[in-house]
Amino acid sequence: MTKVAIVGASGYTGGELVRLLKNHEKVEISAITSRKYDDTPIYKVHPNIRNSDLIFKDLEPNSLDADVVFTATPHGASMKIVPEILETGAKVIDLSGDYRFKDIATYEKWYEIEHTSPIKASYGLPEIYKKEIKKANLIANPGCFPTGAILANLPLSKEKLVERIIIDSKTGISGGGVIPSAAFHYPTCSDNVSPYKVTSHRHMPEIQQELGMYSNVKVSFTPHLVPVIRGILTTSHSFLEDESVSTEDLVKIYKKQYKDEIFVKILENGEIPQLNSVRGSNFAHIGCFEIDETGRLVIVSAIDNLVKGASGQAIHNMNLICRFKEDEGLNSYGLHP
Amino acid sequence: MTKVAIVGASGYTGGELVRLLKNHEKVEISAITSRKYDDTPIYKVHPNIRNSDLIFKDLEPNSLDADVVFTATPHGASMKIVPEILETGAKVIDLSGDYRFKDIATYEKWYEIEHTSPIKASYGLPEIYKKEIKKANLIANPGCFPTGAILANLPLSKEKLVERIIIDSKTGISGGGVIPSAAFHYPTCSDNVSPYKVTSHRHMPEIQQELGMYSNVKVSFTPHLVPVIRGILTTSHSFLEDESVSTEDLVKIYKKQYKDEIFVKILENGEIPQLNSVRGSNFAHIGCFEIDETGRLVIVSAIDNLVKGASGQAIHNMNLICRFKEDEGLNSYGLHP
Amino acid sequence: MTKVAIVGASGYTGGELVRLLKNHEKVEISAITSRKYDDTPIYKVHPNIRNSDLIFKDLEPNSLDADVVFTATPHGASMKIVPEILETGAKVIDLSGDYRFKDIATYEKWYEIEHTSPIKASYGLPEIYKKEIKKANLIANPGCFPTGAILANLPLSKEKLVERIIIDSKTGISGGGVIPSAAFHYPTCSDNVSPYKVTSHRHMPEIQQELGMYSNVKVSFTPHLVPVIRGILTTSHSFLEDESVSTEDLVKIYKKQYKDEIFVKILENGEIPQLNSVRGSNFAHIGCFEIDETGRLVIVSAIDNLVKGASGQAIHNMNLICRFKEDEGLNSYGLHP
Amino acid sequence: MTKVAIVGASGYTGGELVRLLKNHEKVEISAITSRKYDDTPIYKVHPNIRNSDLIFKDLEPNSLDADVVFTATPHGASMKIVPEILETGAKVIDLSGDYRFKDIATYEKWYEIEHTSPIKASYGLPEIYKKEIKKANLIANPGCFPTGAILANLPLSKEKLVERIIIDSKTGISGGGVIPSAAFHYPTCSDNVSPYKVTSHRHMPEIQQELGMYSNVKVSFTPHLVPVIRGILTTSHSFLEDESVSTEDLVKIYKKQYKDEIFVKILENGEIPQLNSVRGSNFAHIGCFEIDETGRLVIVSAIDNLVKGASGQAIHNMNLICRFKEDEGLNSYGLHP
Repeated sequence: MTKVAIVGASGYTGGELVRLLKNHEKVEISAITSRKYDDTPIYKVHPNIRNSDLIFKDLEPNSLDADVVFTATPHGASMKIVPEILETGAKVIDLSGDYRFKDIATYEKWYEIEHTSPIKASYGLPEIYKKEIKKANLIANPGCFPTGAILANLPLSKEKLVERIIIDSKTGISGGGVIPSAAFHYPTCSDNVSPYKVTSHRHMPEIQQELGMYSNVKVSFTPHLVPVIRGILTTSHSFLEDESVSTEDLVKIYKKQYKDEIFVKILENGEIPQLNSVRGSNFAHIGCFEIDETGRLVIVSAIDNLVKGASGQAIHNMNLICRFKEDEGLNSYGLHP
Repeated sequence: MTKVAIVGASGYTGGELVRLLKNHEKVEISAITSRKYDDTPIYKVHPNIRNSDLIFKDLEPNSLDADVVFTATPHGASMKIVPEILETGAKVIDLSGDYRFKDIATYEKWYEIEHTSPIKASYGLPEIYKKEIKKANLIANPGCFPTGAILANLPLSKEKLVERIIIDSKTGISGGGVIPSAAFHYPTCSDNVSPYKVTSHRHMPEIQQELGMYSNVKVSFTPHLVPVIRGILTTSHSFLEDESVSTEDLVKIYKKQYKDEIFVKILENGEIPQLNSVRGSNFAHIGCFEIDETGRLVIVSAIDNLVKGASGQAIHNMNLICRFKEDEGLNSYGLHP
Repeated sequence: MTKVAIVGASGYTGGELVRLLKNHEKVEISAITSRKYDDTPIYKVHPNIRNSDLIFKDLEPNSLDADVVFTATPHGASMKIVPEILETGAKVIDLSGDYRFKDIATYEKWYEIEHTSPIKASYGLPEIYKKEIKKANLIANPGCFPTGAILANLPLSKEKLVERIIIDSKTGISGGGVIPSAAFHYPTCSDNVSPYKVTSHRHMPEIQQELGMYSNVKVSFTPHLVPVIRGILTTSHSFLEDESVSTEDLVKIYKKQYKDEIFVKILENGEIPQLNSVRGSNFAHIGCFEIDETGRLVIVSAIDNLVKGASGQAIHNMNLICRFKEDEGLNSYGLHP
Repeated sequence: MTKVAIVGASGYTGGELVRLLKNHEKVEISAITSRKYDDTPIYKVHPNIRNSDLIFKDLEPNSLDADVVFTATPHGASMKIVPEILETGAKVIDLSGDYRFKDIATYEKWYEIEHTSPIKASYGLPEIYKKEIKKANLIANPGCFPTGAILANLPLSKEKLVERIIIDSKTGISGGGVIPSAAFHYPTCSDNVSPYKVTSHRHMPEIQQELGMYSNVKVSFTPHLVPVIRGILTTSHSFLEDESVSTEDLVKIYKKQYKDEIFVKILENGEIPQLNSVRGSNFAHIGCFEIDETGRLVIVSAIDNLVKGASGQAIHNMNLICRFKEDEGLNSYGLHP
């Protein structure tokens, strides 16, 4: 059995890693760490995890007995421990933003933190970087919004079909993490829709970095909080440069792009992605492909922000690194209703 | 006291008219009609309306004893009764789509119904047509999405600041009406976001008609169902033709446009409209005015779809017709939380 | 105009007082106080309150220029300021638990605070204490659960129909107040039901105090958090001592008890109270009256916890003290849907 | 591989059977039937089920090629097909109420249907009837409310600790099934709590039947709809006959009762069951055990109504019949948050 450790396991993505790994036949969890919950049994923090002996421990990065370490630590905290963990010989899959940017200056501008330990990492979006991921020691697991947005738009950029993309995303509140605040207070969030960081969200440069690899496409991004626990619904508006491109052409292009990707499902024939079809699963649904009278193209993607947008994708990356079956531990269907 | 009748009063907008008119000091409700609920006391359909003697009656259009009649009837049904009601001498405020279009062909194309009784009506958006409304016999009360979208973008079109507008709207489920269906079933809607009629919603041509009055602006529109009872949050993405226009300039333009409009509130200094600030009220909040690095401008508006987007606006129109105070019966604050 | 001040106006009950007083024709708000938000315009805290000049001020209790003062302060804080406010000659309506108990020892046991300034107050449930309230200088506004529970069971105790009452209440999350915490975090509360303080909630002795006035009835009480913004649905289970008492008898008894109470509505003929019929209103709906095969009687009541359960009731009390119309400012219908 | 068929697979419990069986290593689904959706691919009805070749077929009961058949058919419909399926030699697990009652008269009274084909079935609550289930040809899978209520109270009845039990249950809306109706319309259910069939729910006699096996305990039952997709939270109020019984005694009794039951988890040390800990899982959490000053005991249980309350329990029963591991296909953790 491959040994895995989860650093910062008391948050939502930490809990989700434990939940998903329960059904993974090739690994055992050797440690879950938390400073705050040292010596606390896991069910006191993640009340869904029962019949488990896991106990949070406040362990040092270099004392983890693991082949693969997931760092589910906040931005800024990961960079302080990842180098030390790598030195133990473990592979690291980091769920923070610390290693996602090719250009450190971009990171420092948008995260407003000095980067103290730049290391080359593979960007952990398997649908693009599968080969690199398999050989990597450090994976920068993508942000939740970028996962939905990049998958929805990758073929458009690769095929140079559009020059501008406007991404209007709707996220469940769990994306804000486990720590209570006024913005995530039930009476505030319920029966509400709340746009935030309308032109200044740090996932924008991450989306731009990836979609900008293939063309000069310019990305605009605006997220909204919606009263949903989990899920990101991304509505992508763009304008086709070539008016002769049809919905059918697009379906073909998307199907070709993702033909080997088991977690990407292209919906067609008028089926539109919805959050309630991917809840709890690692699938990304992509669909719509409608073009209106003004030449606007709409692509919609749906993911579970905590699974495909975080912990499921991290396990997918581990499966690639460790040469496990790609969907090992990840082949459950979502919860519907 | 002015006598008002509500035709088709068993739906959500009918109930909302009764709720709001309770606090209106100049009118009395002479009749609420319903074919289905003939002789049923109102509280059996609208359980919030208590201590009221109102009883649904299945009345003929020409037997309404009223100075003003609200027709809260479905599209296609209104055109069959409005001419007859007008003949009684009553003013009519129609909440359906039947009289909203200047061009009958547009109506017939998008509603897929033959229009059997075209009559000139005033489009009942007081912020544009106050003068006409005051003199009108028939008001076409605007659609819910158009109300939020037109108010958010009117100054952009008038000032010819943009050529394209992409309107991404999020609506509460009450917008779908009182009749149960799979799309509005609780287990389907809850914890979900669902784009629908992504490029084919019939509110698009209505928005285009109004915004297209002043410039050649092209409107794209996509609505989404979100798990909210009431409210429409409209996120409008556009691109400024003149790069020198700033957020401050826009705030000035918007404040000037709406300076005499008591129900439009321009938010500034980073305050972003949210649904939970207008719930139950007739206010429209407009704000954001952010411009991102790609030149994209974001305007956000928030309304209660059943109030400013329907029944509240209808009462506002009645106040104008009858020369009552503009906010008579409409000056309550929204419910927060 | 009567001058009213609201101390601690930044919480939910403070905001609700301002919202409701907007439609009150006999009073003007002379001050809203907050230590935390000194000099902040009201809309920054209560985003629904627009077109208002109200600004939070950090005022001393003795410098309030008011005829009536609402103290919407936390338990323990009220007792520190109420005596000083009373000395200014103002009448005080206190929304905390500090003055609700006839027996100080009960307060100190359940609130675990020493009571430093016991003063005789009238318990502000108008349906029981209307006469006393009219003459009082200090009103202890009832707790939200007690309001729903006492109204649902008062006739049972008065008529000595039952010896034991089991009160199973379901409350909206706003009952927990405006301050974020893990228990009220959206991802925790949504799609959840959570019993809490199952046998130890301090509203129990308050209910016992009032229902125990008339008989030896023993009260049990268990509250649950449900994913609702506002509202308390109280299900009261009891056992009739006299098996010959019928549902019809009970309806008669309840109607008689509440015949002069404009905010209490007895539902009959199988209609069961629901939260969505009282949202935003000061009504209490009471109904059900079913008796099952084992002799168990079920009474259900529904209130809005922030209105009839707090601020609306406080205004009702003010109307009584000031000899205004009982429903002045409180006659709006609830929001449905 | 064991072949299983699902009759009436288009409803929520049918979809849930397919979802759960995906992770079951010993069975393959040979048929999913639906009259309405004949020839429709499964994802069109259950949009979470992707990468599946399953297609609904309108098959006759005697043409199912299966070792085990789940009949997820409505009450009244099951009795018409179960005898025929049994004749094919298949074991049948029926999710309707048709075979749950030992006394046909009770069924006919509460379901208001004549029972046309009484057959002896095992009541499929494995925590009580494991031995019988293993030998049965026909399993009557328990109702959702009875599952939560019986598990919460079984030890009280067995040990003759109480004489009366008042069961106050809160159910998610999916319990009402997939067919839209006014009661399950989003704008009606959201932000609401709605008691229904307060003294007349047909799950009451089912609970009474099982708890009444061991003592003369009298059961009262009242369900409530709460704005939750999945889950039943049962609050059980009873009165201990012997005042010397303590919380600790009760924990011991419950732990002993369920010591071999892998899906029942006794919570202790103040931990209270919540719906969000069992969402999507087959676990039943039981806890609270608090006794108040009046001698009232509170037991709380939480289950997912579609899993432990229906399809998960049905698979558990299949595992017993087929001598698979008890938790085969059922060992996933719930979704939290």
